[in-house]
Amino acid sequence: MTATAAERAAMTHALEIARRGPRGLNPQVGAVILSPDGAVLAEGWHRGAGTAHAEVDALSQLLPDELRGATAVVTLEPCNHTGRTGPCAQALIDAGVARVVYALDDPGDHSGGGADRLRAAGVDVVSGEQADAARALIADWLDVQRLGRPRVTVKWAQSLDGRAAAADGSSQWITGPDARADVHRRRAASDAIVVGTGTVLADDPALTARDGDRLFPHQPIPVVIGTRRTPADAALRRHPHEPLFYAGHDLAAVLADLRDRGVQRVFVEGGPTLASAFLAAGLADDVLAYLAPVLLGGPRLALTDIGVPSIGAARRLTVDEWLPLGPDLLAIARPEQEAAPGAETQYQTTRNEGAA
Amino acid sequence: MTATAAERAAMTHALEIARRGPRGLNPQVGAVILSPDGAVLAEGWHRGAGTAHAEVDALSQLLPDELRGATAVVTLEPCNHTGRTGPCAQALIDAGVARVVYALDDPGDHSGGGADRLRAAGVDVVSGEQADAARALIADWLDVQRLGRPRVTVKWAQSLDGRAAAADGSSQWITGPDARADVHRRRAASDAIVVGTGTVLADDPALTARDGDRLFPHQPIPVVIGTRRTPADAALRRHPHEPLFYAGHDLAAVLADLRDRGVQRVFVEGGPTLASAFLAAGLADDVLAYLAPVLLGGPRLALTDIGVPSIGAARRLTVDEWLPLGPDLLAIARPEQEAAPGAETQYQTTRNEGAA
Repeated sequence: MTATAAERAAMTHALEIARRGPRGLNPQVGAVILSPDGAVLAEGWHRGAGTAHAEVDALSQLLPDELRGATAVVTLEPCNHTGRTGPCAQALIDAGVARVVYALDDPGDHSGGGADRLRAAGVDVVSGEQADAARALIADWLDVQRLGRPRVTVKWAQSLDGRAAAADGSSQWITGPDARADVHRRRAASDAIVVGTGTVLADDPALTARDGDRLFPHQPIPVVIGTRRTPADAALRRHPHEPLFYAGHDLAAVLADLRDRGVQRVFVEGGPTLASAFLAAGLADDVLAYLAPVLLGGPRLALTDIGVPSIGAARRLTVDEWLPLGPDLLAIARPEQEAAPGAETQYQTTRNEGAA
Repeated sequence: MTATAAERAAMTHALEIARRGPRGLNPQVGAVILSPDGAVLAEGWHRGAGTAHAEVDALSQLLPDELRGATAVVTLEPCNHTGRTGPCAQALIDAGVARVVYALDDPGDHSGGGADRLRAAGVDVVSGEQADAARALIADWLDVQRLGRPRVTVKWAQSLDGRAAAADGSSQWITGPDARADVHRRRAASDAIVVGTGTVLADDPALTARDGDRLFPHQPIPVVIGTRRTPADAALRRHPHEPLFYAGHDLAAVLADLRDRGVQRVFVEGGPTLASAFLAAGLADDVLAYLAPVLLGGPRLALTDIGVPSIGAARRLTVDEWLPLGPDLLAIARPEQEAAPGAETQYQTTRNEGAA
């Protein structure tokens, strides 16, 4: 069974309105209710953890009589999980919906199975309609489900020979304006930007994502890890988001807390010690190494110890692209030990149904 | 005045026979003598320092009557320098040659001026015929004249983060087979391959240029710098060329001695200490950094100290190419401080007229 033309158009619209919801603990989902003859009756989207799911948001706008024999078009498989409001699959059955068209299977161990429940109740179910677009829409959220934590990008800039600074600590600027602009664009695509206290004290970074002097609309939350105090007049204290401070060095605990705050993508820019710690802990999903065509030599290494005793234990990378940026070169890579995006791994967690 | 069709053909042939001579202290030069009606009377080429120059080699095959009104086609400006045999320009005048066509001006302060002497004696002179091909033929020799020493390529392989080996010293193999094959091709284009004693003791390299198991026809001379003894059974002692050993660390003196031995291109493969020493001394004309997509961290740096105290003194590189080699990447670069090839600098030395 495949979707009708009216259902396909409704799915395209559902994907658009899904974007109105926030990035956070729950995926962005959109829903459109169609009458048996294909007219749009209602639409809905999810507004974040603790609020109604998209299907329920749409259903709530209609009277019971209007719903008899209707079709629900949803960007994600209706959930089968009893949270605050009960499973959406049951809500659709109870409403008398005759047919459900959805894009993407729910990856959650607990929330999945909604399609089976619908079919068992005699509802027509069509899955996979515009699945790729739906997957792209919530790719970062899917990563969080797969990894059990936010996806981590570790970024550093280095001389060709692997130094972060000259012998006296001076480093501005190793890379050129094209490379720095690229960094800001990638900051803007992240939910949190993580540095160590050493970097705060040495460079006093603003940790905003900027296009020249203009702030990008989406700003990552500044996160500082380390035991040294951040000065009261530090530039990052003027960031649009309240900074988060973690005194310990338990990176997994930091990521778990960031996940609970709805952070899906973490950008680690934090200096050699922090970058090396994430790599050593196997907590780097993506590596961005900006290479400047200079040689520095000396003791200021871009990476310190990452726990590789011998060549057999080398942290091998899959380089997706060597990207020239003016005179510099960006290596866009993934450690081979880490699970690749889209790999067939067990999802570890479920959509959050409770309050944010 | 431009060259005739017969003279152009003769120059093409002269460039071919020039290659029969050896690379060494003197440039490879070819000469063809044409009769007034364009017939080939004789040809000659230079067979190395201490032997006749190409023009004289060709002239010597003809009787005085045959030379009256003849044209000499030569790949390099006839020299004006009195060495073992007297200047070639005068020899051509004395032989009664009426016209000289040559490709490339002689860059030597002392040997140059041959064209002027020929003109002053009433000889027709055409210069610049196939100059680019002639320049390419003796590019390495021209570099030696410009630099006053052999041209030096400093090569190293490193992990993306600038390590030459893992913490325990293991390093085989950081780079893959494509990168290693590229190294061997470049070894074969060099006259000498330089390593430190540390590399000899650690890796026992053969220092041959190989295509798989087959030796390339041209092999670089193995050169070892350092005070530690090379073992009697070291692999490099079985090299087709007798190895050269230099106990001191005066790199300029080593290069001067290699120049006197006719070495035009030096390939420094010698480990972090030696590579860094050449860079610190400003004696690297070309840099080849083979980057493997692995991270190692730890203390085994591909470059150590190259004398850069602050970022303003960074050794900036002009990267001519970022060349992918399988999964690896080769940065083909030149330090900006060094004179670029073809730069307008004063030639410091002259062709060697004496015995080798």
